[in-house]
Amino acid sequence: MEHAPFPSWPDVAPRLIAVAAGREAADLVIRDGVWINVHSREALPGHSVAITEGRIAFVGPDASHCTGPDTRVIEAAGRYILPGLCDAHMHIESGMLTPAEFARAVIPHGTTSMFTDPHEIANVLGLDGVRMMHDEALMQPVNIFTQMPSCAPSAPGLETTGYEITPEDVAEAMTWPGIVGLGEMMNFPGVSAADPKMLAEIAATQRAGKTVGGHYASPDLGPDFAAYVAGGPADDHEGTCEADSIARVRQGMRSMMRLGSAWYDVESQITAITEKGLDPRSFILCTDDCHSATLVNDGHMNRVVRHAIACGCDPLVAIQMATINTATHFGLEREIGSVTPGRRADVILSSDLSELPIEMVIARGRVVAENGSITVDCPHFHWPAHARDTVNLGDAKTAADFEIKAPEGANSVRANVIGVVENQAPTKALKADMPVRDGLVESDGEICQIALVERHRASGGVTNALVSGFRYRGRMAMASTVAHDSHHMIVVGTDRAQMALAANRLAEVGGGVTLWRDGQELALVELPIAGLMSDRPAQEVAGKAQALVDAMRDCGCRLNNAYMQHSLLALVVIPELRISDLGLVDVRSFEKIELLEPLE
Amino acid sequence: MEHAPFPSWPDVAPRLIAVAAGREAADLVIRDGVWINVHSREALPGHSVAITEGRIAFVGPDASHCTGPDTRVIEAAGRYILPGLCDAHMHIESGMLTPAEFARAVIPHGTTSMFTDPHEIANVLGLDGVRMMHDEALMQPVNIFTQMPSCAPSAPGLETTGYEITPEDVAEAMTWPGIVGLGEMMNFPGVSAADPKMLAEIAATQRAGKTVGGHYASPDLGPDFAAYVAGGPADDHEGTCEADSIARVRQGMRSMMRLGSAWYDVESQITAITEKGLDPRSFILCTDDCHSATLVNDGHMNRVVRHAIACGCDPLVAIQMATINTATHFGLEREIGSVTPGRRADVILSSDLSELPIEMVIARGRVVAENGSITVDCPHFHWPAHARDTVNLGDAKTAADFEIKAPEGANSVRANVIGVVENQAPTKALKADMPVRDGLVESDGEICQIALVERHRASGGVTNALVSGFRYRGRMAMASTVAHDSHHMIVVGTDRAQMALAANRLAEVGGGVTLWRDGQELALVELPIAGLMSDRPAQEVAGKAQALVDAMRDCGCRLNNAYMQHSLLALVVIPELRISDLGLVDVRSFEKIELLEPLE
Repeated sequence: MEHAPFPSWPDVAPRLIAVAAGREAADLVIRDGVWINVHSREALPGHSVAITEGRIAFVGPDASHCTGPDTRVIEAAGRYILPGLCDAHMHIESGMLTPAEFARAVIPHGTTSMFTDPHEIANVLGLDGVRMMHDEALMQPVNIFTQMPSCAPSAPGLETTGYEITPEDVAEAMTWPGIVGLGEMMNFPGVSAADPKMLAEIAATQRAGKTVGGHYASPDLGPDFAAYVAGGPADDHEGTCEADSIARVRQGMRSMMRLGSAWYDVESQITAITEKGLDPRSFILCTDDCHSATLVNDGHMNRVVRHAIACGCDPLVAIQMATINTATHFGLEREIGSVTPGRRADVILSSDLSELPIEMVIARGRVVAENGSITVDCPHFHWPAHARDTVNLGDAKTAADFEIKAPEGANSVRANVIGVVENQAPTKALKADMPVRDGLVESDGEICQIALVERHRASGGVTNALVSGFRYRGRMAMASTVAHDSHHMIVVGTDRAQMALAANRLAEVGGGVTLWRDGQELALVELPIAGLMSDRPAQEVAGKAQALVDAMRDCGCRLNNAYMQHSLLALVVIPELRISDLGLVDVRSFEKIELLEPLE
Repeated sequence: MEHAPFPSWPDVAPRLIAVAAGREAADLVIRDGVWINVHSREALPGHSVAITEGRIAFVGPDASHCTGPDTRVIEAAGRYILPGLCDAHMHIESGMLTPAEFARAVIPHGTTSMFTDPHEIANVLGLDGVRMMHDEALMQPVNIFTQMPSCAPSAPGLETTGYEITPEDVAEAMTWPGIVGLGEMMNFPGVSAADPKMLAEIAATQRAGKTVGGHYASPDLGPDFAAYVAGGPADDHEGTCEADSIARVRQGMRSMMRLGSAWYDVESQITAITEKGLDPRSFILCTDDCHSATLVNDGHMNRVVRHAIACGCDPLVAIQMATINTATHFGLEREIGSVTPGRRADVILSSDLSELPIEMVIARGRVVAENGSITVDCPHFHWPAHARDTVNLGDAKTAADFEIKAPEGANSVRANVIGVVENQAPTKALKADMPVRDGLVESDGEICQIALVERHRASGGVTNALVSGFRYRGRMAMASTVAHDSHHMIVVGTDRAQMALAANRLAEVGGGVTLWRDGQELALVELPIAGLMSDRPAQEVAGKAQALVDAMRDCGCRLNNAYMQHSLLALVVIPELRISDLGLVDVRSFEKIELLEPLE
């Protein structure tokens, strides 16, 4: 898809100079605001900003010398003029939205730059999928930079993804215009063990002069951490406590503190600045994962900055952590992250520095949102048919596909059961005695069936297992093609016929989430693009997702974040027990195990 | 000349990881020091640093896990472990030394990275000369990064340089391995006027993703300054007062505060941090110009850091301004500027954080100096014959070449005289009535002759004029091939025969500075490389330079920095009156003027 690249600073320098000198008139002047200067860390009243060609030409106490009769003048009238906010690490797919619709949802919240790792689509559509995300990103009126996904599969040998990412893919992606670095290097044991494939991806990124994203998801700050740091990742958003944050910064990494829909890692780490007094330049704010409901109801990076301030952080420091600190980290500080000459004119007007109401958003010199409403188009990429046809089950599923056969003659069996733990990502590896009827293992009120249905290659494969914690009642099943990280299909249910109905329904609509009871569909979120994203507005997707959660409650599930728990059951990198297309996986030992214990 | 490039982080990552993890032993361990952490801005006692392959593999409280029987262990014994110091902007030629000898002089002072602009040699030998400086720089045991000179000639139309630098030269240089950016863009009126040649050089640099050095040498912070900023320079070292420094930082530039041999711009600007409390991240220390005597007697960047601390700056902030701030500015913070994993192992040991004695210097993992003495070689480039043969006068000069003819019949004339002002770079445009004898204008006790002798193309050209302020007595002359910026030859004297002797002597030795009286040479500093540099040690050059200054005093000159005043008399970018190969130049109007006023 075609799009005009945004003109570079040197492309428009003659015009910027002419405007700054007062020889020509600016396109737009923002008059008389309090300039939030993130370089000097000052709030400077009585300043005006002159903009032309989408870039800032001049900032000073008086822009009348470059204001002409055709210059649009916006009166800041004493409000704060601050840089557009940057999300330093995030996955657009987490919003179940395409880049265009994600942008449309976050622009009114003041986000003008995002650093996105399209890791989910990489598992489904490989480099081709990453390129499509990248291309739609570049079509938007705000800056969406792409980090090349590093870890597909995230657990080689334990699952089969739709595609794999290779070092050659990484090297190729580094030549694309919108790529700023390597996405989070999740295979931290691999880096610490000097895995050649992981190191080759890092090397390709470093040699391209770009930034290697980190992901060290362990509390161990000993030699394994040191080895990971020595491997080259330049940032990390997986810290959860002050010691994590401090350790990363001291070792020369950026500490990215996240507040996502389900991540609350700012308050516990920001004390490194607010109490320990560390230099804040190496700390950065991000969201990592935001659901569409969060975007619709609570905000995006403005929510994170507001939260940091509520945690006791100086508002100017908090704003630095969502603007210049991020820009500097990615080598983009002469392009974005501050309201200074030459930079893209990404500017927010706000009347309060702690509540941070986003009253006007300007991106690349255009007013893109006013008082919470978007005022520009966010163009859609023409997603090709194969990107909308990724749920390939082969023959329609039947109840028989979900049968768990008991050993001959058994009246009951002892089974390994995935135990969901409320409000935690790790599961428990449980054991339970399950009833047998007609030679088949049956679910009971506490434990129901789970199936991983292969959907990338129409192999017909189904892995059946058992899960506890959802407390579903009645004859029901829920299916989802969002199934981190390999994104096959996860079906959880109390009844094999309903499981087949749910699975077949997702094949019919091209992916999403569906809930069935007694032969009726109670809720459906269509995610036709890669089975991960909708190209409908965030409001609509959030509404359908809420209806789904309501339907889960109707079926007896009282679990917090129940949908997220469902979608993470195949995440074979987080302990203890998970399901994959290759079987049941004990993530403590990284080994496949049998569902049923041998008879005694 | 061949040199092995220093291995990159990805080249040696497997080994760094193995050492960090404790699976292999480090080459070198620095044990039990106070880790000066420039990322977090902390001094952390009880830390050890493990080094291998010239890079830092591990920093932590205990490096015993990566210390083997063959590991060299250096006991820090509670001393400070700090990053090697960076000089963010400098001209090696100012030391009258080659890069190798400059490095040899500054390494014992703890300088391990320099950002050098070989502007002087560019005027004499063009791109070829820049390449030779660049190549010798890359041969050194420390990091000498080259900024491609931007302004040769610095005053087009007012002087003729040996070579001119074009935008195409800049674009080519950006592909060289040691180039980090564009050298100071001195043509600030050109940038403010959107001069296409200057903008093309800036564009070539920005498109290469490198840093554009600035030089805005005016106290005017109005629209001309704004236009300069909009043109793209990313830093500036020409500020002289707090307002200059603050204005640059607020506009998104780095404020480089310099302490050179004759520049004292730190104390007057550092109050932006120490009193106004601005975020120090955008402030950087540099030297710009250091004479060899300063290097021999006073130090280099350690002198600047020490001075900043003496001005009231927190030592940790002062060290940041000479390490990580510089590295970040040039996009090199994952390569140099901190003692953290993956970076080049450039480390200083010091027992005091305010006096900053440099007790040991390690560069790229090798001990390069101990207690003020260098312990490694600084290899010399094989300078070709044409680089040593740059004083091309054509026929030998005679006294007649220096005659100033008076209008026929005149007994005296009114002349425009260059007035040297002690301790200031600008000169005064004076007028004086001069005696005439045998039809020739004669010098008197107060005013002597000055000549600009063309030396690049053997044109035979001599521009004769008059200068006041040196107060030379007797029959003498002094000549120098260091003659900023075009580096022809400047001869100042009271006697035309001595002037010819001095000029011819420099042609004989290939350039330098010489002083003659009554037919005898009183002092000589040979600078055979481009007529600008010696490849002899700094100590020797400093000794000869001191002998020259002593000889100037013997001849009656009591001026402070008299040699520098001499060498700047052709600098046609600083007001008021200068001499060039094209004539006498009034720098207030950028016009050539006549030496003698018309008769009334």
